[in-house]
Amino acid sequence: MRDFATHTGIEFLQQMIRDGNSSAMATLLNMKLIEVSDGKAVFEAFPSEKFYNPQMRVHGGFMATLLDSALGCAVQTKLARGVGYGTIELKVNYVRKVIAETGRLICTATVLHAGRTMLTSEGKVAGPDGKLYAHGSGTFLVFP
Amino acid sequence: MRDFATHTGIEFLQQMIRDGNSSAMATLLNMKLIEVSDGKAVFEAFPSEKFYNPQMRVHGGFMATLLDSALGCAVQTKLARGVGYGTIELKVNYVRKVIAETGRLICTATVLHAGRTMLTSEGKVAGPDGKLYAHGSGTFLVFP
Amino acid sequence: MRDFATHTGIEFLQQMIRDGNSSAMATLLNMKLIEVSDGKAVFEAFPSEKFYNPQMRVHGGFMATLLDSALGCAVQTKLARGVGYGTIELKVNYVRKVIAETGRLICTATVLHAGRTMLTSEGKVAGPDGKLYAHGSGTFLVFP
Amino acid sequence: MRDFATHTGIEFLQQMIRDGNSSAMATLLNMKLIEVSDGKAVFEAFPSEKFYNPQMRVHGGFMATLLDSALGCAVQTKLARGVGYGTIELKVNYVRKVIAETGRLICTATVLHAGRTMLTSEGKVAGPDGKLYAHGSGTFLVFP
Repeated sequence: MRDFATHTGIEFLQQMIRDGNSSAMATLLNMKLIEVSDGKAVFEAFPSEKFYNPQMRVHGGFMATLLDSALGCAVQTKLARGVGYGTIELKVNYVRKVIAETGRLICTATVLHAGRTMLTSEGKVAGPDGKLYAHGSGTFLVFP
Repeated sequence: MRDFATHTGIEFLQQMIRDGNSSAMATLLNMKLIEVSDGKAVFEAFPSEKFYNPQMRVHGGFMATLLDSALGCAVQTKLARGVGYGTIELKVNYVRKVIAETGRLICTATVLHAGRTMLTSEGKVAGPDGKLYAHGSGTFLVFP
Repeated sequence: MRDFATHTGIEFLQQMIRDGNSSAMATLLNMKLIEVSDGKAVFEAFPSEKFYNPQMRVHGGFMATLLDSALGCAVQTKLARGVGYGTIELKVNYVRKVIAETGRLICTATVLHAGRTMLTSEGKVAGPDGKLYAHGSGTFLVFP
Repeated sequence: MRDFATHTGIEFLQQMIRDGNSSAMATLLNMKLIEVSDGKAVFEAFPSEKFYNPQMRVHGGFMATLLDSALGCAVQTKLARGVGYGTIELKVNYVRKVIAETGRLICTATVLHAGRTMLTSEGKVAGPDGKLYAHGSGTFLVFP
């Protein structure tokens, strides 16, 4: 949550994994960055009734949060010391219903384009059955 | 959370407002449906440090949850008794940074197309300063 | 097609309308900018069998071109002299089938956010029957 | 352009390649399906000044048409005899400027989800330099 000035993007994320740290939002929604490498980030998440929508399924916002987190961290692995960034646009496709019994989700995101000011990434969310539950993409801008 | 069989979509939502009910996810993220009419839904939400991402701003997933909720409820006002539905696709644009001090957000969603099996809606998120913080759209399928 | 250095965005577009000019792509696809004002642009387009896909309907790319054109011109009305820009992201929803007999389409686009480096806009495509055939949004970056 | 009733989706596309046929729109924009297999479709396209926007670059609509074509054909490889389909939603990211000199573009699309009524696919557009120029995704509905 600090150390932007002294760490590259990937160093910052590697330290989060080592220290077992998560952002406030990731903690609240029981999501965690578990793996990071150049241009890639992997999150795990645990669906629960705490995240249900009125239709008694996991809220679309839960999957969007998971994808935005992984898409953003994948992009962050490409950033130099002291460089901030933000999501400017997120797109999610929901292809299978997620309920508490679905079990542990793995979201894998990969950078598609790493420009000087704009970066894009894509991500997939898979269940323990190996099936695809959601996929998406995001666009990110670098703040100098 | 029940009463799908005996209520139209809009009756179900009107009762949620009357009873002060929210879904588990909306409660967790401090969001609430406050107004509903034919083809329209309005949510309020309260940014907080509990919803921060590692960059110490409100997580993109928070805004995505708010938009998905309002976009879905707008669509639900068009549904007959006993008809279920789900988001198949969500798109969010983030146009201003949101922090705890931003204050109460109002998300207004409007149906654009109400077909027999597919519905679409668009939404805007405004702050107490009247400025636009995010906007988006969604596509929904009806389950018979 | 020139005059970027001496005209503001809106002056450039107003002159295109006055001179009856269109870009090569717009001419090829029989689309034309017909109205422009601060934060708004309107195109007309004429569906034809020349623009059909293998399913014998107007190609999704035709509607995407129409929307991208209008979304971009709406954004251009906000730009100062000598400022270039480009689409970084386009999203289109297709809500009704378009065929040659559909007749003249009107695409109206409106700026949602006009920041210093990023602008967003939304657009709707309506037919002579007043019905919505497609809608979409775009994100644009300014090149200094 | 016919034979929907007697061919599966992939047989229809294989015959298009064998016969050297293209849709009217693909012919107009100089694009062609060159390869198809289960869940995958590849198009080639040739940027030209005929497809320029007022900024004297290839129009975003050209790339959107290329992606929509490939995304749709990838999905079509999954369809049984007599089944129609259509794009309901298309998302394109533009990550590099395309001009006439960019040369031959290859667009490769892959199915991500093949459900009974909804299918999704993703695509990438690469240049002769092997670089990524655009990417995108689409959602498709089956018509019974």
